[in-house]
Amino acid sequence: MTSVIGKSVKRTDTLGKVTGGAVYAGDVVLPGLLHGKTKRATVAHARIKSIDTSKALALPGVKAILTHVDVPRVLHYGSPHPRSASVTQDQYILDTKVRYYGEGVAAVAATSEEIAELACELIEVTYEPLPAVFTVEDALKPDAPAIHEVGPGGNLVLPPFVVTRGDVEKGFAEADLIVEGEYGMGRPTPAYMEPNVCVCQWDPLGKLTVWTSTQSPFMVRGTLAEVLDLPLNKVRVLVDHMGGGFGAKQDLFQHEFLCALLAQRTRRPVRMEFTRKETFLGGRTRHPGTVWIRQGFKRDGTITAREAKVVFNSGAYGSHGPGVTAVGTAALTSLYRCENVRLEGRCVYTNTPIAGAFRGYGVVQTYYALDILMDEAAEKLGLDPAELKLKNAVREGDVAPSNHPLTGHGLEDCIRRGMEETGWASRSEKRPSPKAARLRRGWGMGCEMHGSSAYPGIKEQGNAVVRMNEDGSVTLMTGTTGLGTGAHTALAQITAEELGVKFEDVAVVHGDTDVVPWDIGAFASHTTFMAGRACQMAAAEVKAKVLARAADKLEVSAADLEMKDSVISVKGVPGLSMTVRDAIAAEKGIPAPQLLGEGSYHPTKSYSFAAHFVEVEVDTETGQVTVLQVVPVHEIGKIIHPIAAAGQIEGGIQQGIGHTLSEDFVVDHRDGRPLNASFVDYKMPLAMDMPPIRTIILETAPSDGGPFGAKGVGEDPIIAIGPAIANAIYDAIGVRFRHYPIPPEQILSALAEREGAQAA
Amino acid sequence: MTSVIGKSVKRTDTLGKVTGGAVYAGDVVLPGLLHGKTKRATVAHARIKSIDTSKALALPGVKAILTHVDVPRVLHYGSPHPRSASVTQDQYILDTKVRYYGEGVAAVAATSEEIAELACELIEVTYEPLPAVFTVEDALKPDAPAIHEVGPGGNLVLPPFVVTRGDVEKGFAEADLIVEGEYGMGRPTPAYMEPNVCVCQWDPLGKLTVWTSTQSPFMVRGTLAEVLDLPLNKVRVLVDHMGGGFGAKQDLFQHEFLCALLAQRTRRPVRMEFTRKETFLGGRTRHPGTVWIRQGFKRDGTITAREAKVVFNSGAYGSHGPGVTAVGTAALTSLYRCENVRLEGRCVYTNTPIAGAFRGYGVVQTYYALDILMDEAAEKLGLDPAELKLKNAVREGDVAPSNHPLTGHGLEDCIRRGMEETGWASRSEKRPSPKAARLRRGWGMGCEMHGSSAYPGIKEQGNAVVRMNEDGSVTLMTGTTGLGTGAHTALAQITAEELGVKFEDVAVVHGDTDVVPWDIGAFASHTTFMAGRACQMAAAEVKAKVLARAADKLEVSAADLEMKDSVISVKGVPGLSMTVRDAIAAEKGIPAPQLLGEGSYHPTKSYSFAAHFVEVEVDTETGQVTVLQVVPVHEIGKIIHPIAAAGQIEGGIQQGIGHTLSEDFVVDHRDGRPLNASFVDYKMPLAMDMPPIRTIILETAPSDGGPFGAKGVGEDPIIAIGPAIANAIYDAIGVRFRHYPIPPEQILSALAEREGAQAA
Repeated sequence: MTSVIGKSVKRTDTLGKVTGGAVYAGDVVLPGLLHGKTKRATVAHARIKSIDTSKALALPGVKAILTHVDVPRVLHYGSPHPRSASVTQDQYILDTKVRYYGEGVAAVAATSEEIAELACELIEVTYEPLPAVFTVEDALKPDAPAIHEVGPGGNLVLPPFVVTRGDVEKGFAEADLIVEGEYGMGRPTPAYMEPNVCVCQWDPLGKLTVWTSTQSPFMVRGTLAEVLDLPLNKVRVLVDHMGGGFGAKQDLFQHEFLCALLAQRTRRPVRMEFTRKETFLGGRTRHPGTVWIRQGFKRDGTITAREAKVVFNSGAYGSHGPGVTAVGTAALTSLYRCENVRLEGRCVYTNTPIAGAFRGYGVVQTYYALDILMDEAAEKLGLDPAELKLKNAVREGDVAPSNHPLTGHGLEDCIRRGMEETGWASRSEKRPSPKAARLRRGWGMGCEMHGSSAYPGIKEQGNAVVRMNEDGSVTLMTGTTGLGTGAHTALAQITAEELGVKFEDVAVVHGDTDVVPWDIGAFASHTTFMAGRACQMAAAEVKAKVLARAADKLEVSAADLEMKDSVISVKGVPGLSMTVRDAIAAEKGIPAPQLLGEGSYHPTKSYSFAAHFVEVEVDTETGQVTVLQVVPVHEIGKIIHPIAAAGQIEGGIQQGIGHTLSEDFVVDHRDGRPLNASFVDYKMPLAMDMPPIRTIILETAPSDGGPFGAKGVGEDPIIAIGPAIANAIYDAIGVRFRHYPIPPEQILSALAEREGAQAA
Repeated sequence: MTSVIGKSVKRTDTLGKVTGGAVYAGDVVLPGLLHGKTKRATVAHARIKSIDTSKALALPGVKAILTHVDVPRVLHYGSPHPRSASVTQDQYILDTKVRYYGEGVAAVAATSEEIAELACELIEVTYEPLPAVFTVEDALKPDAPAIHEVGPGGNLVLPPFVVTRGDVEKGFAEADLIVEGEYGMGRPTPAYMEPNVCVCQWDPLGKLTVWTSTQSPFMVRGTLAEVLDLPLNKVRVLVDHMGGGFGAKQDLFQHEFLCALLAQRTRRPVRMEFTRKETFLGGRTRHPGTVWIRQGFKRDGTITAREAKVVFNSGAYGSHGPGVTAVGTAALTSLYRCENVRLEGRCVYTNTPIAGAFRGYGVVQTYYALDILMDEAAEKLGLDPAELKLKNAVREGDVAPSNHPLTGHGLEDCIRRGMEETGWASRSEKRPSPKAARLRRGWGMGCEMHGSSAYPGIKEQGNAVVRMNEDGSVTLMTGTTGLGTGAHTALAQITAEELGVKFEDVAVVHGDTDVVPWDIGAFASHTTFMAGRACQMAAAEVKAKVLARAADKLEVSAADLEMKDSVISVKGVPGLSMTVRDAIAAEKGIPAPQLLGEGSYHPTKSYSFAAHFVEVEVDTETGQVTVLQVVPVHEIGKIIHPIAAAGQIEGGIQQGIGHTLSEDFVVDHRDGRPLNASFVDYKMPLAMDMPPIRTIILETAPSDGGPFGAKGVGEDPIIAIGPAIANAIYDAIGVRFRHYPIPPEQILSALAEREGAQAA
């Protein structure tokens, strides 16, 4: 029986947020603060012939301008330090070449944002244009221009990523039915609420302090230290509150280096904040691309073989391309059981905005393809699609994409529960008739699985330090970042639960790389799972120290003691107890030692599962798709904070609806210029667009690694919603869409095309 | 052979100080900051009949006013949490009674300091005057007004503190000579460079953040938490740089409570900074008082008995009166050996400014008396005063004032070395003649001893956490405060030395009670001694973890490894070595665990010693005394940073010269009004007034507790200089002064009196 976890305690971050008291990086004000701006390229591919800064420098209020000649020339990239195989190092702070429209070519520090912007306009850049490519098809042509000097060549970000299992030829030979299709996806952006923002200040001893909106403060510390040639204890990165990242803010952005360098040059603090437009131009998107899949089936639905070719468009730089390609491609070994698999993933440079890490990390794209193909196959096999998926669902003993054995039957549990909840078997009977009415309804479902933690056993490590103060109150020190997910609340719950104190007794110190333990960053659904387990370990160490002191004072064995709500009792002896405060108080003049505990957890990989069931209504006159209801069923092991977990699920569904129906950051294929870099033109679903969501969370397959059996739920909810909607649209109007987003004009033109075909 | 300690490495705090980059509490600027001011009483003893704030509240810009009806009525005081026997709890934040001229009776928060000051003037307080007492003599009279309701009564702060050893009557009976005298002292103030200043802010969750100039951030946290009824993890106290405290800033001051309460009331950050005048009015002074001593001597100089009565004037509140009285009185058991001792210390409330902790902590006053009496006795015995002191100097095996056995022969070493250095035996021969010239010269000497650490074995505890970052750089986390002494440099040296890395590799995190380990505060000469030892312990733990990893990789035993300058070598095997960075790097995919070490040290008490030798010149026409040279000889165990240690010694001597010759904060005995609350009227020696100081530091008696044998040197240098000067003046002009300060007018009147007597 737990007393703190599993309850939706009041989150520690929300009151600050609703009262405006929460401090974000952009709220930092320092005496003498300067404002920095980035001069961005207006060409997609070019060599820089010259940059004339004289007019800009003459502008009163301009304090410094940096171009490529002023900054260290170190190839860098991003992501957790020490460097990861998931990312490429192909970027300079400022280069002599431009590879996409909107890339930074210079930076200004001035006494106001307005002056800095004006100075950017006054900087004159002369370009020598280069031929540009905007699609993977063009980029892969033999005569395509080379965008980078580094890498395997042919505009590949990495050599093709290949996974094979079993004998694919034999599998297809045994098939009664072979289904194949090519699926494509647009370029959704994370569109986080808080724009990228950074404030940098150097102290007289050459120590750099950075306030920045990042998911990975220690990555920022490590990479800045490396590029600027500083020891790690000379770079301090501070993140208190943060307004979303969704993976994109795992990268280090140009402005973070430039802000540090401008502050160094001017000897004054400098602040650089993206405009909303810059979050599109200089931000990170999901990888657009195509997924071709071919699957063989037995008549009973058993999958005999699977082949796939994944091609992702990385944009101008590699960023997380390698990781996204590998994870997205390898995901196709699983979800639905198949012994014979051959997969190939490629990631290709183009002269378009940079694709990076984004919630779902490649799996959104590949499971979208797989789950529509399964729907198509079910129809051809004359089987119910949910039954087909249930039959093939991965389960205990199967091998996960990460090659770990899977435990439990989470996916089957989710599918079965969703079918029950929606009355799936009788869904056709409930459909409003006549079928030919203007408004047509349909049901669809999709599945997903996603691992908690990214690189189990390699370099991931959850760390925590727990300290009990002399009044029995507790301070948890964690390097994790709160993106807005309530992570620190969950970690405090875990600490309180393990320690035997009240939730309110635990304060969380985070967001200061000088003082909190190292953390890899907030991504890969691993904060609660991995850092949570480290908190549990650290709390257990403190508890042991407290109980040892209490045992001395009570003259019993520590093993006979239990602790709850800060009261220590002797098991089975009512009345024999003492408060934690008394236990740790000085006795015979000897004070308690430092009550410090530390935890380090190297994770195993645990998978969470979900099945999303969706009902849509299609207006056949306007092409408008309305999602009427969503029933997401998630299996995530032990729930720490039910409302926060449900919040993750609902947020993921909202983002997923946007990506499936309306969101696409579009680049003009003539000149590489983005066409909708604003919230006016880039369409996201708002609160009033949201359907009712009946979230169901199962705890049927607890992890053996996470705290109290918990698993992650950050990535999962954005994956299954897309194919569920696409399958529901097919169910409603009988038209199959193999590309997202699916905007009204495509619905209308597909309906018109079908009517034309029927008429012919 | 040490490589980092014992060297005067570049201090980490100085560059920030000289460039203006160092951040003091007063430099903190926050959005919406209000300014607070204290309305101070203009009577010395009165009951408050009423306070009319209506005019003040009507002033535009005034945001809140607090009087005694608005603040929690909790008796508090100060000093390290949990509460210490060294201090009294006799003060309310704001009371219904005024006990000294300048006491705070209300506080204002307004949009500017000027408005807050004006509002204070507009507050109308009606007093019911009470009879006031300004001297201990008046306060101890049977019909004296009672200043407090708490305490033992009779205006005593604590019951008389009595120490007896041996048989004093027998001792005096055995004496060949009995010498007695009463010695008195004025009221010097610490006059720290940085005025008291405090900034308070509450976050939306009710957490209080306090930037304040304090020696004891954890005391501030503990006492504020207690008085405001908050858990300790809801109060965060921040101190980065600090501009001196000298003991006074061990107390919590009225404005620190008021600042927190004004910020709570206004929901805005509030800043309160003392004017220089307020540092006098509302600050803390040394305890003025009288010390009566009677000593018996054998003809050969052996002391047979000692009796003393110490009476300290505590001012309006007790503050550190109990501690200062006990330590100052008990000090008379020692310095010069004596088996038969009877001492009584009393501490008395008066309606004068508050006396508190001040460098030397009561010992300045009592050793001043003892060391002049020894000089008087030497003359009567026909012995050289230095020889008399050397004969009686405490030594190995004697019992210290704290009842610990003393180790080593530090005091004898100091006296002997000083006699050598000054050519003491032949000093009279070097004296300029004729003796009757206008300018007369003389030599004097004084001795002292002072313990490192205040409450050994009771509640003192040095703590440290040391973390090695993944690049091998090191972060030391310490709760100690840097008053300007270079403490954090010394702690980094100790950490680097023990760990085997370079000094530059160690960064120090301090000054944030949320994250650093608990510390009792920077006082009692114990930072280097006690926290330093904890740093050494924490560093040793990290080193063991690093060596274990290196041993694995090098396939040798960790016991065979040594580490220096971040290189780990196999002892006796040249060439077999690896860097720390390589040792801690991930191997076989497994990263190093958190490299965290912690140290907690409960100190023994170690004593440092000194003898000061001084030459003065007295101008018999003006009464001016010029200190021509000082030769201080200090024995402090292992020196960590020679220049910083010498800086402590020189600073103490400068303060001591001031107290002995010119500094006295004077209260008008008619109405209790201070007469010289400014640097114009309160005369301190400036840099140009300083004599040459030839500092000699001995390391002949290392402590067995401190790091590498180090002992403290913070309190010591202010003690022996006073009697050395007084004895030198006697040597020069033959007039004995038993009271400090000794201003020119006293010299002149004493000379005139003697001439009158000689003429008669």
